[in-house]
Amino acid sequence: MAIAYPHVIRSEKATVEASMMVSTPPPSRPPVFLSQDELKKIAAYKAVDFVESGMVLGLGTGSTAKHAVDRIGELLKQGKLKNIIGIPTSKMTHEQALSLGIPLSDLDTYPVVDLAIDGADEVDPYMNLVKGRGGSLLREKMIEGACKKFVVIVDESKLVKHLGGSGLAMPVEIVPFCWKFTAEKLKLLFGDAGCVAKLRTFKENGEPFVTDNRNYIIDLYFKKDIGDLKAASDAILRLTGVVEHGMFLDMATTVIVAGELGVTLKNK
Amino acid sequence: MAIAYPHVIRSEKATVEASMMVSTPPPSRPPVFLSQDELKKIAAYKAVDFVESGMVLGLGTGSTAKHAVDRIGELLKQGKLKNIIGIPTSKMTHEQALSLGIPLSDLDTYPVVDLAIDGADEVDPYMNLVKGRGGSLLREKMIEGACKKFVVIVDESKLVKHLGGSGLAMPVEIVPFCWKFTAEKLKLLFGDAGCVAKLRTFKENGEPFVTDNRNYIIDLYFKKDIGDLKAASDAILRLTGVVEHGMFLDMATTVIVAGELGVTLKNK
Repeated sequence: MAIAYPHVIRSEKATVEASMMVSTPPPSRPPVFLSQDELKKIAAYKAVDFVESGMVLGLGTGSTAKHAVDRIGELLKQGKLKNIIGIPTSKMTHEQALSLGIPLSDLDTYPVVDLAIDGADEVDPYMNLVKGRGGSLLREKMIEGACKKFVVIVDESKLVKHLGGSGLAMPVEIVPFCWKFTAEKLKLLFGDAGCVAKLRTFKENGEPFVTDNRNYIIDLYFKKDIGDLKAASDAILRLTGVVEHGMFLDMATTVIVAGELGVTLKNK
Repeated sequence: MAIAYPHVIRSEKATVEASMMVSTPPPSRPPVFLSQDELKKIAAYKAVDFVESGMVLGLGTGSTAKHAVDRIGELLKQGKLKNIIGIPTSKMTHEQALSLGIPLSDLDTYPVVDLAIDGADEVDPYMNLVKGRGGSLLREKMIEGACKKFVVIVDESKLVKHLGGSGLAMPVEIVPFCWKFTAEKLKLLFGDAGCVAKLRTFKENGEPFVTDNRNYIIDLYFKKDIGDLKAASDAILRLTGVVEHGMFLDMATTVIVAGELGVTLKNK
């Protein structure tokens, strides 16, 4: 499968490696349009370059992280990586990693994680993130907060000027008890930003989406910038009924962005 | 049952009413020792004096609050209170109130509560509380945070110079996922105060105690004063995996203390 610039590509592996080195394609060649999933894969493979044998690894959740977990499994099978311990950030990733034969453990056993690789829903210019549209924000935050290095992998559509700026959801995990009351409090908290708060439900039957921790998700949508993110974070966490929110502030150490014109890395 | 000063007591009702008026017993009479439960009942009955017909009431949980709920049920049966809506702070209180015929609802339906009555495990001189040794801190905090008036009822053994000062537990509700990791983080947070963090378990079988929200409780024990309570609160809530803690800061509007020498009321 040729997924990037055809003039340098012979195989999937070559594709990824080539894209790593190229920041812009040669001007004489016509641009090649890559699908969003191809871009995600490029970023994911680049992140796996950071993995070394013997590491304890946080394994992310979602369509981008899935590629990284697949790649780690592949390198283990090929013997190019050894003695990896994976700590999955969701039940879904747990299943995926098991099927790939990646040895797994948890934070109780390995409270310090060498490296985590995960996607994000939004990345602002300061490397703050919104995560959790996939529903696994709490476990991700716990594991990625315990990492020495946290590599975030995204396609360029995830870059925003400010968190909430994509107009898509900023998720908050809450206890099911009196969820309407908590949702209303969240909405009022960001009244100035024109906040709308919606319970996440399954389209098929309207039933609430339930997290791995058996909680609900309230998706917040903002019309305006919410301003000071640390203040917003504390205000959300102070609401009784809130378990965690999807803003990952000051956590990413590297962001890898795959775009049409190549891959960019940003370090903290 | 004569529960207080025998020279003024003819019945349980008289006992309570008399004790309300007496701040110290007449010096010529010998002191009468009341049990802790009798003191709890005195405080509870006094708190119910604040209840008026038509109110939406937060119904507390625990051995002291139980007396208040019983008393509300009694006054409803006698027709002395009417049109009360109770919002129970736990499944246990829900059952108790149901059995007493108190009409019940929830915060989603009644987001503003007129008055809540509940016990506390500790009360400091600024009317800050520790609650949740009974395991129901999250629902209590949600409901009591939505109250116009929050009357706290305690016997005098609950008064402390600073929160944590009783040497008994300050509970923190956490998600079960990687609970050891979260417990360790909590302990480290209060390392300077000589904090010990213990998972709450059932004595009979060592199984973890599970809250109404299907979470675990970590009981924190402090050797020293933890200092700035608001800073401590924010630091605990910022830990991923923490759902809520048992410090109720700036929430009580009245504290009723029943002691050997009478009942004292403190208003904010």
